[in-house]
Amino acid sequence: MQDTLPNSLALQQAIQAKINFKTKPLGALGYLETIALQIGLIQKTDTPQLINPHILIFAADHGIAKEGVSAYPQEVTWQMVYNFLNGGAAINVFTKQNAITVKVIDAGVNKTFDDLPNLIKAKIDYGTQSFLHSKAMTLAQLEACRTEAQRLVREVMETTQANIIGFGEMGIGNTSSASLIMHCLTGIDLKLCIGRGTGLDDEQLQNKYAILNRAVAHHSIDTHLPYEVLQTFGGFEIAMITEAMLEVAQKNGIIMVDGFIATAAFLVAQKVNPSILKNAIFCHQSDEKGHHLLLEYLQAKSLLQLNMRLGEGTGCAVAYPLIQSAVNFLNEMASFETAGVSNKD
Amino acid sequence: MQDTLPNSLALQQAIQAKINFKTKPLGALGYLETIALQIGLIQKTDTPQLINPHILIFAADHGIAKEGVSAYPQEVTWQMVYNFLNGGAAINVFTKQNAITVKVIDAGVNKTFDDLPNLIKAKIDYGTQSFLHSKAMTLAQLEACRTEAQRLVREVMETTQANIIGFGEMGIGNTSSASLIMHCLTGIDLKLCIGRGTGLDDEQLQNKYAILNRAVAHHSIDTHLPYEVLQTFGGFEIAMITEAMLEVAQKNGIIMVDGFIATAAFLVAQKVNPSILKNAIFCHQSDEKGHHLLLEYLQAKSLLQLNMRLGEGTGCAVAYPLIQSAVNFLNEMASFETAGVSNKD
Repeated sequence: MQDTLPNSLALQQAIQAKINFKTKPLGALGYLETIALQIGLIQKTDTPQLINPHILIFAADHGIAKEGVSAYPQEVTWQMVYNFLNGGAAINVFTKQNAITVKVIDAGVNKTFDDLPNLIKAKIDYGTQSFLHSKAMTLAQLEACRTEAQRLVREVMETTQANIIGFGEMGIGNTSSASLIMHCLTGIDLKLCIGRGTGLDDEQLQNKYAILNRAVAHHSIDTHLPYEVLQTFGGFEIAMITEAMLEVAQKNGIIMVDGFIATAAFLVAQKVNPSILKNAIFCHQSDEKGHHLLLEYLQAKSLLQLNMRLGEGTGCAVAYPLIQSAVNFLNEMASFETAGVSNKD
Repeated sequence: MQDTLPNSLALQQAIQAKINFKTKPLGALGYLETIALQIGLIQKTDTPQLINPHILIFAADHGIAKEGVSAYPQEVTWQMVYNFLNGGAAINVFTKQNAITVKVIDAGVNKTFDDLPNLIKAKIDYGTQSFLHSKAMTLAQLEACRTEAQRLVREVMETTQANIIGFGEMGIGNTSSASLIMHCLTGIDLKLCIGRGTGLDDEQLQNKYAILNRAVAHHSIDTHLPYEVLQTFGGFEIAMITEAMLEVAQKNGIIMVDGFIATAAFLVAQKVNPSILKNAIFCHQSDEKGHHLLLEYLQAKSLLQLNMRLGEGTGCAVAYPLIQSAVNFLNEMASFETAGVSNKD
């Protein structure tokens, strides 16, 4: 098959036929078949390839963290950045196992970092403003998030030929941002969008709800404007992930979507460019309360449901071998004909 | 920590503490934490290792296949054996990707095979008898399944030091065997135990139900005797898998349980030796109708739910990287202390 079929329907039928004539009952590889077809359509070929998978971890701090919405103190953000750089975090273990390249980006951590070999410096500011009092960021800062994220994605994709990129995040307080973005852009009741994050107890969860409720009341924003929602409630890491995802889709790559916060960033991207859905593989349904509703809203099904709730891109990293399996069966399995196996009548 | 802690509770607490002090919120790796703890307990250490993973595919034919219970003709069993040996099947693709050794065993295929380098010959007979008319196998044949399976598992574990083994099967008609075993040993309504197998339509499914209903009526067996159920309705591949699983548990290995048929074989093993559950990791919940009820009965949760229904051990092969991830995070992640990250108060 040529890479330049005249139209996508013919391509779709060709890939589907190739899947159907593999030596297995029709549909017997389930969701892996869906993924194989999707990747074939993205790459416009029935012999797709995954090249140089990357996970980009964006870290930033949040003004709202000082209001007591998280179980952990804000300094954990920069401490975890060092942990990423030193190879001690979960995402390091899983990406090493699955041969995925990790990059760590300071998108706006409340700490001045030295020049460190594996740290990409793209600090917008030392954390966002608390959205209890003002918009989280200025328009200029939002614009800077876009510029930096686009530059970074272009560099990765152009210098390494990477065609599949996942996104992780680190930022104490960022489930609060994600919940508010979800609430504003989906219309789902705020209470259903709020979860325990890194481990709030019942009383702390009540408090988080009260604070986020006040935040919603404080702003009168047009919820039809995804960028206004992002500017008001976003974090720098969330805004950069949104823009990076849009850029990957623009360059026809595969986006691995991680958990609750990454999916909130994806939601903004999807409101900006609805066709981005065709480039997205949802890797893991988080245990964080709002995530399954958010995936439902996007009509998305995740590859994994492991009750994880860690962020960092860990869902992408552990799901990656399944995506590779989908591509591999399409390229490597025998057909009924070549294997001399009788097909169903 | 020594490998010889005085009791298993102390070991459990030590492993759990190690998990809890990794740089992540408590419980944030979800089901991977459960698996890590389980493997630590099996191996009696907080630094477990997976060594030389194997998948053993047992193939056999079934007398019942001639009664029209499958969408595919019986010769597909031996044709797929050749496909396994030639590396063209889904299981070959996935095991190659994940560095798992595959062995193919002729447990009772209706075909005389030449001596082939990768085929293990353990043929009990050229297929079972149809359980519409008699027991599927004789007691001597059931005993032979045990001897062959034990010998095989011992050889694999002793010569390669493999400590994690998955089991696949191939046998046209074997969902019928699995449904009857499930029905007899769980008491779940027969209709709920029967599915479309490799792809029956509604009328064929009705027919399968009628046939299996007749089979149940034909035999008066004591459903408290798992081996009698296995002898009556089993296939040679199912019986060998049951015995092989028991042997792996006996030798303190990890059993990867695949889909519906492999879980039916496990059910027999679990009735023989209930403690086998602690050695079992359930890899994938099949799309085959009875499987989720069977897992529920065993109070088991599968790592994956990908709507696959292929057998061959494919669920084990694609789940393996997640099991490796569980072991890796336990061994390789930094603790709060070593990473200098603040823990929750």
